[in-house]
Amino acid sequence: MAGKERGVEWSINMGDGTSRVLEAESRFGCRGLRRFASKMGGFFARAWRLGVNEPKKTIHCVKVGMALSLVSLFYYMRPLYEGVGGNAMWAVMTVVVVFEYTVGATLCKCVNRASGTLLAGALGVGVHWVASQSGERFEPIILQASVFVLATAATFSRFIPSIKARFDYGAMIFILTFSLISVSGYRVEKLFEMAHHRLSTIAIGTSICIITTIIFCPVWAGTELHNLIINNMDKLSDSLDGCVADYFSSNSETSDKTLQAYKCALNSKATEESLANFARWEPAHGKFNFGHPWIEYVKVGASLRSCAYCIEALNGSMNSEAKVPDALKKHFGNFCVRLSNKSSAVMKELAVVMSSMKKPSKIDFMVEEMRSAVRELENALKSLSKQPIQPTEAKAGEAAAPPMAVTLAEVVPLVTVSSLLIEIAARTEKLSEAVNAVAEKAEFEVETAEEAKKGQSSKGGNMVGEEDKATKTLQKV
Amino acid sequence: MAGKERGVEWSINMGDGTSRVLEAESRFGCRGLRRFASKMGGFFARAWRLGVNEPKKTIHCVKVGMALSLVSLFYYMRPLYEGVGGNAMWAVMTVVVVFEYTVGATLCKCVNRASGTLLAGALGVGVHWVASQSGERFEPIILQASVFVLATAATFSRFIPSIKARFDYGAMIFILTFSLISVSGYRVEKLFEMAHHRLSTIAIGTSICIITTIIFCPVWAGTELHNLIINNMDKLSDSLDGCVADYFSSNSETSDKTLQAYKCALNSKATEESLANFARWEPAHGKFNFGHPWIEYVKVGASLRSCAYCIEALNGSMNSEAKVPDALKKHFGNFCVRLSNKSSAVMKELAVVMSSMKKPSKIDFMVEEMRSAVRELENALKSLSKQPIQPTEAKAGEAAAPPMAVTLAEVVPLVTVSSLLIEIAARTEKLSEAVNAVAEKAEFEVETAEEAKKGQSSKGGNMVGEEDKATKTLQKV
Repeated sequence: MAGKERGVEWSINMGDGTSRVLEAESRFGCRGLRRFASKMGGFFARAWRLGVNEPKKTIHCVKVGMALSLVSLFYYMRPLYEGVGGNAMWAVMTVVVVFEYTVGATLCKCVNRASGTLLAGALGVGVHWVASQSGERFEPIILQASVFVLATAATFSRFIPSIKARFDYGAMIFILTFSLISVSGYRVEKLFEMAHHRLSTIAIGTSICIITTIIFCPVWAGTELHNLIINNMDKLSDSLDGCVADYFSSNSETSDKTLQAYKCALNSKATEESLANFARWEPAHGKFNFGHPWIEYVKVGASLRSCAYCIEALNGSMNSEAKVPDALKKHFGNFCVRLSNKSSAVMKELAVVMSSMKKPSKIDFMVEEMRSAVRELENALKSLSKQPIQPTEAKAGEAAAPPMAVTLAEVVPLVTVSSLLIEIAARTEKLSEAVNAVAEKAEFEVETAEEAKKGQSSKGGNMVGEEDKATKTLQKV
Repeated sequence: MAGKERGVEWSINMGDGTSRVLEAESRFGCRGLRRFASKMGGFFARAWRLGVNEPKKTIHCVKVGMALSLVSLFYYMRPLYEGVGGNAMWAVMTVVVVFEYTVGATLCKCVNRASGTLLAGALGVGVHWVASQSGERFEPIILQASVFVLATAATFSRFIPSIKARFDYGAMIFILTFSLISVSGYRVEKLFEMAHHRLSTIAIGTSICIITTIIFCPVWAGTELHNLIINNMDKLSDSLDGCVADYFSSNSETSDKTLQAYKCALNSKATEESLANFARWEPAHGKFNFGHPWIEYVKVGASLRSCAYCIEALNGSMNSEAKVPDALKKHFGNFCVRLSNKSSAVMKELAVVMSSMKKPSKIDFMVEEMRSAVRELENALKSLSKQPIQPTEAKAGEAAAPPMAVTLAEVVPLVTVSSLLIEIAARTEKLSEAVNAVAEKAEFEVETAEEAKKGQSSKGGNMVGEEDKATKTLQKV
């Protein structure tokens, strides 16, 4: 009886005297309704989490609401109504269409909208004048032909990469405005007045957008790009450290989230490029001047991605089933963990350089350390081969000195991991060159003597930290 | 004198009696003008090439022109003008905004535009009625508040991934229509008529778009996705073959274009996902039914990408400077080239399966062959280690039998390449599983006995071809 507390049950009496309990599904879709409710609940819970985790996005939504309320105020106030008349609709439309998440994207769309409208307006009036001079018979033909030709040409221009990247929206607005003018001009006959109204309403809409987006918690495309690159560097560095530590140590437990973090960098190309494109439109803000070399950030992103590809391959080969003798793993773990720590430390330091925007002073030193770690690993590989390799069982040797008998089959996974780590180190060097190019072009400040001293001592601290980390990881091995 | 045929030169007489030839730059920007002209020429040449190489895009542009001409005809014809009045503008606007490159994208935007307008229209009229019932003082407050709240909520919904993927445009149109109605309703007082006009003009615009996009040379998002995946498979297969052949053979010269072809697959995620999203909206076309499992294509794309990452790492490790003795390279080349040929043959065959949409019959056999090539390569690695490895010079051994003395340092690059090839083979197997899932869900036809026979003989042919290829490559080694 205790097990039956499931609420009311529905049952049918069958012909043979027994009764059958109706399954929940058949109760007039009651379960379906409950499933729908739980689905909706889940949806709203996810939406709530999204809002809480990314307050910037929530603020953006409020800003859109504010901008629209502002622009609709123009409608309610009689003087303005008299001024711009029924065309005030264009102001509302401009705000809805132009208001984007980042300042750069909003500015880009505003400029595009304004210049597209102006250009198409001028051309439209010109074509209209030509058409009106050529008699009633040719007028519609000329107008139609011009719409056809210009719409085709402008649509084609949207396929050209350099135009698509910057003026895609402008080309669309050009087509729209030109079609509207050359078509409506046939009836309305008050082209200049219409053009004047449209331009003034668009000006109202764009200025409301620009003011709202810049004054209240602005989201700068440049800052977003800057943070994205720095975050990806940090994630890559953590992933690299984590997966090497996990492979060589049985009791190191890196969370899956950290291990998979590098995947963020794999598919960020499109985001980075569009952010860089928008960032170009932004005025000086925070630490960035107008004309900050955002295009160099895209190159840093590409370098990062090439590291990420290698980490992906590394992850793949670490999951292979081939077993490696423990003694060998321990011996190699020494060098591999050291190299991966050095590489990830370089990435971390590059992230610090990018975020502090100070010229890197200790990067060269750290890259040199990474190179020496590469040489040590290469020497370890060479010294292994100095021993006769025979198909015998591996014996436990000293971790520091490598006299042990191994077969090649046993070292295959280790050799692969080592080569990939060496390749990652090489790509990390390329990354540091890319960051150097940013530092050069953006004219990062040189560290003052005081800061350098502080950096030196913290570098010492870091190095101790790293050594500690390496030792700790190895003690676990 | 012969060297002076540079046309007219400008010179200034200096004070000391000599004369200085003016540099081209200073001639009233003449060189700047020429540079501008040559830049423009280059731009148009590139644009022309784009148009010639991708006739589909050119046709799309002409279609946009046609659709706009069609819609403007509605303006010129008096009966329709009487019917939809000044709102005919909305028809032009709909065509400009909604007409996209693929049928799926156009349909998606049409549905979004129609449903967004309907929903916002209904809500707008409702809110307007409530506001009008609550007195003159509260009316603007209620309207303003509703615009603020709904615009904020709808903007937020655009950040939710599941809504963003399908209804991003609809949410924007919802905001636009709701703002326009609740704002203009305050003045116009003829809401229903306006709603009726707007809906009918949007219906005219969308139907013109849909008819034009489907009737004249339609570009289906589904077909584009289908071809993109097949092309990427072919490219990956060629790249893999090419780079392994180049590495092991000094006189194999694969073009850079082929070698770099795999890069197409690295960054195609966003394109594939958006195409799959649009393809869902498309009716049955060509070989595809409505409800074709496009989402499975995205998974195939992801598998392809994971192969591409590995090929990227392979390329990186092949460019390393470490020298491998020729004899060893020849010995290993045997197995590596064989394995890469088998893997690339599997990819090629998977591409054939996808493009012919017949259930794969020989894939299992080919995968089995690939596995055996993996085993052979693994055995080759093992057999190497059975020999005592000493730091002596490698002696030329028989390519078939492996008795040779090598050091581990010498084999490091080879071991890495081999492991990566083995990893690529494993990922190719995953790829074939993904293609199988497509075949299952899309209910690919089974090959008829006749086709199977034909396939069998062509398989024989293929196999001979492959063996030939492998032998040829090795003869070059």
